[in-house]
Amino acid sequence: MTPTIGILGGGQLGLMLLQAAIDWNLRVHILDPDAEAPCRNLCTKFSQGSLTDYDTVYQFGQAVDVLTIEIERVNVEALEALEREGKRVFPQPSVIRVIQDKRLQKQFYRDYNLPTADFILTDTRADVALLEIHQPDFFPAFHKLGRDGYDGRGVQRIATVADVGKAFDAPGVLEKAVDFEKELAVIVARNERGDVQTFPTVEMVFHPELNLVEYLFAPAEIADEINRQAQDIARRTAEAFGIVGLLAVELFLDKSGNVLINEVAPRPHNSGHQTIRANVTSQFEQHWRAILNYPLGDTSAYQPAAMVNLLGEEGHTGPAIYEGLENLLAMPGVFPFFYGKAITKPFRKMGHVTVMDDSLEALREKVAEVKAGIRVVSELPARN
Amino acid sequence: MTPTIGILGGGQLGLMLLQAAIDWNLRVHILDPDAEAPCRNLCTKFSQGSLTDYDTVYQFGQAVDVLTIEIERVNVEALEALEREGKRVFPQPSVIRVIQDKRLQKQFYRDYNLPTADFILTDTRADVALLEIHQPDFFPAFHKLGRDGYDGRGVQRIATVADVGKAFDAPGVLEKAVDFEKELAVIVARNERGDVQTFPTVEMVFHPELNLVEYLFAPAEIADEINRQAQDIARRTAEAFGIVGLLAVELFLDKSGNVLINEVAPRPHNSGHQTIRANVTSQFEQHWRAILNYPLGDTSAYQPAAMVNLLGEEGHTGPAIYEGLENLLAMPGVFPFFYGKAITKPFRKMGHVTVMDDSLEALREKVAEVKAGIRVVSELPARN
Repeated sequence: MTPTIGILGGGQLGLMLLQAAIDWNLRVHILDPDAEAPCRNLCTKFSQGSLTDYDTVYQFGQAVDVLTIEIERVNVEALEALEREGKRVFPQPSVIRVIQDKRLQKQFYRDYNLPTADFILTDTRADVALLEIHQPDFFPAFHKLGRDGYDGRGVQRIATVADVGKAFDAPGVLEKAVDFEKELAVIVARNERGDVQTFPTVEMVFHPELNLVEYLFAPAEIADEINRQAQDIARRTAEAFGIVGLLAVELFLDKSGNVLINEVAPRPHNSGHQTIRANVTSQFEQHWRAILNYPLGDTSAYQPAAMVNLLGEEGHTGPAIYEGLENLLAMPGVFPFFYGKAITKPFRKMGHVTVMDDSLEALREKVAEVKAGIRVVSELPARN
Repeated sequence: MTPTIGILGGGQLGLMLLQAAIDWNLRVHILDPDAEAPCRNLCTKFSQGSLTDYDTVYQFGQAVDVLTIEIERVNVEALEALEREGKRVFPQPSVIRVIQDKRLQKQFYRDYNLPTADFILTDTRADVALLEIHQPDFFPAFHKLGRDGYDGRGVQRIATVADVGKAFDAPGVLEKAVDFEKELAVIVARNERGDVQTFPTVEMVFHPELNLVEYLFAPAEIADEINRQAQDIARRTAEAFGIVGLLAVELFLDKSGNVLINEVAPRPHNSGHQTIRANVTSQFEQHWRAILNYPLGDTSAYQPAAMVNLLGEEGHTGPAIYEGLENLLAMPGVFPFFYGKAITKPFRKMGHVTVMDDSLEALREKVAEVKAGIRVVSELPARN
């Protein structure tokens, strides 16, 4: 009766999906290129293989009834073939195709009248150079690689003509820099019958150098009207895509009070990890509800929460050790989650910590304690 | 750095322990006699084998650093040997030994001055017959088999001389029947350094015929003074045993307001499943904290909760189907959990449903809806 489900990707998002799948006794197959992927021992079947290779993805999909993803860098052609043959593939390959390519993604927002920073499509580095000459007002801007950029790679800030050399000499999109007040995110779920449900808006604080969420607060500390805008844009974006599954919508709140879409991810997202502990339904359970066409769950929170990413310590590469775990476990309302990655590297996402309390002020204090209290290091620090 | 842990037993309690183990990336080996046990695909290593065979348990224990149980019918001699060789075995074999034998268990309460129903140890059925003649006031009573009784087996109610034939002709304990108002339970955790933490007292409603929890409410609807007694007795019992791990203490509240120990289990327990959803720390996470000697977690609840056991429907034996899952998923604050047992049988524990709401009245209504809304059946009902 229950379908067999396949997930492309067996990293931390897959791991948290598997944890949620235990409640409903779901049979889950996992495909990941890494034989030591976090999911390897926690699924019905684990296969090692490339997510971007047509044949590998196609063969993997043959053995399951429902196919989903935990990373969007996958072979879409294989997913399209599987979909044509009647497999249920959620999010739909057509949605993944648009989101995989930042050029198509930006054009999609323009076509559907969804607010986003102004942009110009570019084909070569020379295009960027010409724009710098002819439209200097468009700068500072970000040049983004159309395809295959992720976690900070594939993005360059171009402020003046001196930066043009950093632009990509490949199809990309030049996006006017937003002078933002805050970065927000809203995770939306949509099931096949078209029910839509959003999670509360969160406020993300990015690492000053890496393009990674350093920590977040839920709910965001924003005016009600801004929150309504953020929730409405997220919902409209999910409906425009017609996505089945989760859509994480990252937003800018600019200094004039405008809410603009930054980018989206068609899957569970780092901005929703706190929902495992803090919300009635977690983003992971919600993903299962959405793709299995079940009623969507209540997204309200029991308490305000923060989420701190645990990044591998600078200067440490090797077998991971979590220094200070016991400190964290002694703090009330503090919940560490480790991803089971054997090897730590500088700034690698090794886990996260959810923090809950009654007020944002109390959360801020606890976040500082957590950041001071734990380090992901290796026994053998790299020699510099 | 993190130890490898072994669990004797791979049923639903093991499954929920594994789910909690994901947060901390614990390496867990499982031993279970059933090749199709619920835990089989969700652990680092699964071994099929007897839990009561010395060599099997001893060999299994050799490969791990910390050994624990999810069922108390295990080979204690093997655990004692492993403990002597320096393995960390929690709960301790000495505690399991006492609890395995209802005669030793009752005597333990008497020795430690812990309140429990009056009892007489018996060796044969003839002993029970003689007592019926010489101490008729002791009846109605329950005759319990010393060893190997569980889930309703090994217990007979002896009201009059006509029932004596049902008494066991083997070492047992005759326990004066308690005219009880309510059945309560308190789960206690104790770690190696001696920290003790109790979960809120719950109220269990048993199935009228089967000796199984049908549903429970948390917190119990009892006077503060009764609650203090229940919490105090549970804590003192855990301390008397010196247990490391969880101790589930089942209690009677009699019609005169006395709280008496019924029996205990040295492991996670059916009376604590609602803690997964409703409490800051679940009983399963608390078990890991206790046996790994971490600080114990906050046991407070976010909301009142109920837990309904999903039993296999009468007249159905075969591959399990969950009729009405979608009804449940549409109800706010209702969380089904299925154990992944392939085959359903009449009254087999196939899953449970946690229900949360602001008041006990609302919970009672939802419990009725849940019980009416879902059935665990088989495609091929057994022919009678």
